[in-house]
This record gives sequence, structure tokens and C-alpha cells, in this order.
Amino acid sequence: MIIIGEKINGSIPNMAKAIAEKNEDYIRNVAKRQSQAGANFLDVCASVQPDLEYETLKWLIGLVQEVTDTPISVDSPNPKIFEKALPLCKKPGLINSASLEKNKIDLVFPLIADTPWNCVILLCDDEGISVSAEKRIKIFDTILKKAADYKISPDRLYIDPVVEMLASSEDGIAKIITTIKKVRELCPEVHITSGASNISYNLPMRKFINRSFIILCMGAGMDSAIVDPLNKDMLGLLYAAEALLGRDEMCMDYINAFRDGLFGEA
Amino acid sequence: MIIIGEKINGSIPNMAKAIAEKNEDYIRNVAKRQSQAGANFLDVCASVQPDLEYETLKWLIGLVQEVTDTPISVDSPNPKIFEKALPLCKKPGLINSASLEKNKIDLVFPLIADTPWNCVILLCDDEGISVSAEKRIKIFDTILKKAADYKISPDRLYIDPVVEMLASSEDGIAKIITTIKKVRELCPEVHITSGASNISYNLPMRKFINRSFIILCMGAGMDSAIVDPLNKDMLGLLYAAEALLGRDEMCMDYINAFRDGLFGEA
Repeated sequence: MIIIGEKINGSIPNMAKAIAEKNEDYIRNVAKRQSQAGANFLDVCASVQPDLEYETLKWLIGLVQEVTDTPISVDSPNPKIFEKALPLCKKPGLINSASLEKNKIDLVFPLIADTPWNCVILLCDDEGISVSAEKRIKIFDTILKKAADYKISPDRLYIDPVVEMLASSEDGIAKIITTIKKVRELCPEVHITSGASNISYNLPMRKFINRSFIILCMGAGMDSAIVDPLNKDMLGLLYAAEALLGRDEMCMDYINAFRDGLFGEA
Repeated sequence: MIIIGEKINGSIPNMAKAIAEKNEDYIRNVAKRQSQAGANFLDVCASVQPDLEYETLKWLIGLVQEVTDTPISVDSPNPKIFEKALPLCKKPGLINSASLEKNKIDLVFPLIADTPWNCVILLCDDEGISVSAEKRIKIFDTILKKAADYKISPDRLYIDPVVEMLASSEDGIAKIITTIKKVRELCPEVHITSGASNISYNLPMRKFINRSFIILCMGAGMDSAIVDPLNKDMLGLLYAAEALLGRDEMCMDYINAFRDGLFGEA
């Protein structure tokens, strides 16, 4: 399971406060702890007004790199930011994200074509979020072709099926599950990822929805998640699911993660 | 989701103590609370020496029926017990369990043929636990034919794929998932159930394995589980999975269960 640590994000109230107050110790500490918890990438998202975004990202990336060499996931709604932000990173990381919307992908793929960088790709286009799994798969096909044009191998793509909130869904996550299965079938090398917070919007006890969601998606073929690696309950369930899905020989990863204190009683 | 409340079982240390001490209040209270938590059946298993089993079961079933009218799941390793125990139950319930082993099914099916009783069927035979999903499916085919002979409709069968411990498994629960999917495909009306404790034997923090296991099996088509309905974390995940799997219109069951206090902060 490839874990993208979600905590350095200005849309999270505590982190927004730390960013506004320039609380460098807080940010370094969150970076370090997520890294120690086994995050494979650390997402860094400024979530500030556009004219401050680059400077904020630069500062955040610098802080993270002071305390860990875990690769960065550079997170911005503005694809033009990536060109400036990539050279700040000491190691190749993850661009979060591109899509067919406003041709973002045509700005991002040339940037990473001749590098080892990876990229999260949302399965949406200028029509917004697709109403069907079929449409998402069509978008995925287009993306694979574009990646081939730029000689970007599929194992550098992190496909995000784009989750809507469950509260207003008619058939639960049926189309997400169908999309994940089909993407996995069409291209076994590609990574599939998702966040776990949109899904539970407007529902009580969101943690239960978020956790069941991630486990069900893993069962369908998802191999990455954008989550809080410091959440010991979520991490325990993830390690358990990996073992149950036969991706953890003799449960050694599960047992070692437990021994290292990554999950257990909070 | 059809929940079979597991707590009245003499193999659970606290319950064994209550049975040995004839602590009727404790047993009545566990029955009542499981029923209030929405259990669809209450499992009753004496787990005492054979010559005391019938008397103990009779006493336990009486206690349960003093405080709730939730149907009983009569749980015994000895199929001869069922004949004597069924008349004790005020409502038709569940026999737990029969299998092709020692022709148990040929003792149990005649008992329930002309009744509305249901039955848990383990997918094993005299060769013990099957090494493959294919063998389990072959056993399932035989069971469906036998049920048809006795005019027992498939919706009265609770198929248990028979789970082995994960710690010594080579491919996780792959064969269980394959079995569940195939049984669901072959017979949409049948129920599929499982306990959640064998799987985590010999592993630390068993709760994570148990919970991920149930969610993954639900994703494959399981619609029942033998669990502790008083465990608010497990129940929250189950209700969440039901909603995610599109079995809960507008998440109303999830929201109502939360409002009723069935899950939430412990």
C-alpha cells in the first residue's frame, strides 16, 4: 500500500493556523511523524490565496525537507505551480494532480516526461465529474495514450477515480468500484489512489464511512490512499487489508508495523 | 446485513463464567442488549461437556426468551441436539450449523424441511476444510441439490465459506473471496455469513484483521456476519459498508443507527 500522507494541507484547520502563524516547528513535526509512520509521499498543499501560493509552497517544502527525505507530493489546483515547485524538491515525487480538465495534463506531462516524477490523475474532464464508470474508463484510455506519447510508463501514474459524496449517491460507490476494477484489469501496472474524506461529507461519524470506503476500494484493486498515517485505527485496518488481500507474506508487514507502534491502542 | 449476535457462547471466557455460576442476570442482559443493538438472530452455544449440553441450552434459550423475541440461533457441534432444542424456541430461528461432514446435513435438513427454520451450512465435508475455492463450490452445488430435494428454499440457507487463520495462509483470503463471489453468482437468494475470529488467530490487534475481513467479504457479496453487535466500532463499519455498497437508500439506516446510539464514540 502506497500511503500519501495528507496532513500538510492548508485546508485542514490546524494546519491553516500553523501556516498563518508561521509555526515551523508544528509543520516540521507533522512531516517527521508522517514519515516515521511509513508514508511513501508527503502531500504538501498551501491552500492560500493564489498570489501567495508559490512562496508558501516553497517554504513548506523546505521545512519538510529539513526533517525527512520522504518524497513530496506537490499539491496545487494550479498546474503552472508545478513547473516552479518541482525544482525545489530534492527527490522526484508526485504531482497532485492533473486531469483532462482545462488540458491540465498537457501542461503536466511535458514537465515530467523526461524525469522520474509521478503524477496523480483525476478521471474527469471539462464536463466535470463523470456520471458513469464507462465515461471514467474512456478518460482513462485517453490518459494512457497521452502517457505513451510522452513515454511516461503507467507505473508513474496514480489514477484517482474521483469520489463524490455518499450522502447523495443513489447506488453507493458502485461506479467507483467498477472503475477501479476495470482500470486494474486494463493496466495492472498503474497505481490507483483516492482520498477518504469527500465520500463521507454530510454524514455523521465520518471515520466509519472513510475506513470502510478505503477497505472496499482496496478489495477492488486500489493500491494507494491519501490518508492520515498518524491515525492508528485507519493504519491498522490498511495493514490488515493488505495481509487479507495476500500482499503481505506471513503477515510480516502487519506484525512489524504493530511492533513498531504504527498501530495499536491509541 | 443480517447480524447474528455471537455473545451467548460458552467458549467466551466471561460467558463461560456466567454459565458456570448460573448468573442469569448477566445472560439476560447480554441477550437484551444484543437484541436492542439490532441483532437479527441471537446465537446460543453452551460449550459445556456433552452430557450437560442439552440442559444448559434449554436453560440459556429460556433466559433469552424471557427478555427478547429476537429469533435464536441454536449453536451446537452435535446435530442430534437440534431435534430436541428446536421445540424450545418460540419462533423459527437458525440452526448453527450443518455441513456435508458426517452427513450432518442429512440429519438437519429433514428437521427443518417442513418448517420456516433457517440453517448455517459450512462448506466442508469429511475431508475437512477444503484446500480450494473450487472444492467449496462443488460442496455448495451438492448442498443446493439436497436443499431442493427437501424443498428448502435457498433463502433459508446461510452459507459459511469456512475461514482458516490468516497467519498461516499463503494468499490471504483469496479463496474465501472467490468462494463468496461464486456462491453469490450461482444463487443470488442464498445468504452468506461468517464469523470474524478464526481469521485473526495468532495475530496481534485482532480487531483490525476481523474488521477488514468482514468489510472485504461484504464487498464480495456476504450479507450476514456472526459478530458482537455491541462492538460499536464493528457496527459502525458494517453500517458504513452497507451504505457504500448501495444497500442503504440515502444512508437512512446508517443515520438512524447513529441516532439510536448503535455506533458512535464508545
